[in-house]
Amino acid sequence: MNILLYIEYDGTHFHGYQRQKEERTVQGELEKALFHLLKEDINISGSSRTDAGVHAKFYPVTFRTKSSIPPAKIAVALNQYLPEDLKAQSSIEVAEEFNARFHARGKTYAYRFLRRSQPSALHRNYAYLVRNELDLRLMQEAADAFIGVHDFTGFRSVGSSDPNPVKDMRKIIVSEEGEFLTLYITASGFLYNMARIIAGTLLDAGLGRVSGEEIRQILETKERGKSMVLPPWGLYLEKVYYDEEDLLIE
Amino acid sequence: MNILLYIEYDGTHFHGYQRQKEERTVQGELEKALFHLLKEDINISGSSRTDAGVHAKFYPVTFRTKSSIPPAKIAVALNQYLPEDLKAQSSIEVAEEFNARFHARGKTYAYRFLRRSQPSALHRNYAYLVRNELDLRLMQEAADAFIGVHDFTGFRSVGSSDPNPVKDMRKIIVSEEGEFLTLYITASGFLYNMARIIAGTLLDAGLGRVSGEEIRQILETKERGKSMVLPPWGLYLEKVYYDEEDLLIE
Repeated sequence: MNILLYIEYDGTHFHGYQRQKEERTVQGELEKALFHLLKEDINISGSSRTDAGVHAKFYPVTFRTKSSIPPAKIAVALNQYLPEDLKAQSSIEVAEEFNARFHARGKTYAYRFLRRSQPSALHRNYAYLVRNELDLRLMQEAADAFIGVHDFTGFRSVGSSDPNPVKDMRKIIVSEEGEFLTLYITASGFLYNMARIIAGTLLDAGLGRVSGEEIRQILETKERGKSMVLPPWGLYLEKVYYDEEDLLIE
Repeated sequence: MNILLYIEYDGTHFHGYQRQKEERTVQGELEKALFHLLKEDINISGSSRTDAGVHAKFYPVTFRTKSSIPPAKIAVALNQYLPEDLKAQSSIEVAEEFNARFHARGKTYAYRFLRRSQPSALHRNYAYLVRNELDLRLMQEAADAFIGVHDFTGFRSVGSSDPNPVKDMRKIIVSEEGEFLTLYITASGFLYNMARIIAGTLLDAGLGRVSGEEIRQILETKERGKSMVLPPWGLYLEKVYYDEEDLLIE
């Protein structure tokens, strides 16, 4: 049967999602735990390749198994074998052809800022410190410039394996929660470092360093702007969207 | 001069606040950093003794120094010498006789629950997992039974060094924030493990295992109830209260 498993992970001590020979990765730890539980070599498809330090709240993977464990019990049983910074949240059986990566119709990433003058001990690995005042109206205005179908070549790092730089930016929410400011960025897909470069651009917008007009220009010219790739520890994969009919078992 | 310094710490990798010879403690790390910065042996007074794993958001300490560094700069300069899980937030000069511990007029502790069926990777060190449904009305009702001046002998662990078990419980707020439930407990003072036992009692109340009536009985009889001391990682020292006039420099 084909299983859709949702995991949560704290990216701090992982060298990213994708399996690497010598490094501790999410995929590596997950495959190890699945082998212990199911006694089969399991080949998993993850929905995206997150970098070292990036977190995920509800990350979907799919894999096939011959096991007779009831699908919903796999997540629960798996948690005995998973390390504490990687935990299964739920599991269900899905259509045989369904794949967490190829059937993704869109994703939401969150980028979290902590507005404070001194570094935080509690949030050091979970939010990016901003010491200056941010103008939220300017940030929301700049965010609106991204909305729609665009070629995002100007907002990616080299090394992107995605052959299609055209994405549909569906929504960007600028949300205040006490001393935190979180950007929720929803698009049909993301190029390499795209979420962190957009977050860097919106940070610059909040500091009055870049305008919506300049963002439109970068989108048109496809030339990488000056805003930095923000560090990974502020970034969270929040959600991946699928079509119901792709999931359903006939 | 006498300095009031506020620190934040992530208690996960500390053996509590108080200095111990062989263990990594908040006081030990703080005194080390102060020695590096001020080139004096510094004797600090912390506002409370938190256990291993307990966090603090705004923890006050006082110490005297002969340094000529402007008081407000001490916090900033100190952060260069502090580890990443212990960070200074602010510093001011206060009256010569003021002491962070002895002049405390009250404290707020927060206890944070995560309501979820599977363990969380991201919050594993920062909230206590509760898998069962909690009845918030019952929790608030039970919380009200604690309010007022009582002998809290029935809600402490042995080993308390505080000679006065009578405390004024001023306020208990039961606050929902998404999948989190946080108790904000404000009292004139806390006995050993008192915040974690009260949190355990209110958890039991939310599960229908203990009532306000039984809480009143424990307060009267001073006999320790059945509710457990909840684990340290859900607990945060939120705030310590002082009288303005104790702080002011004449």
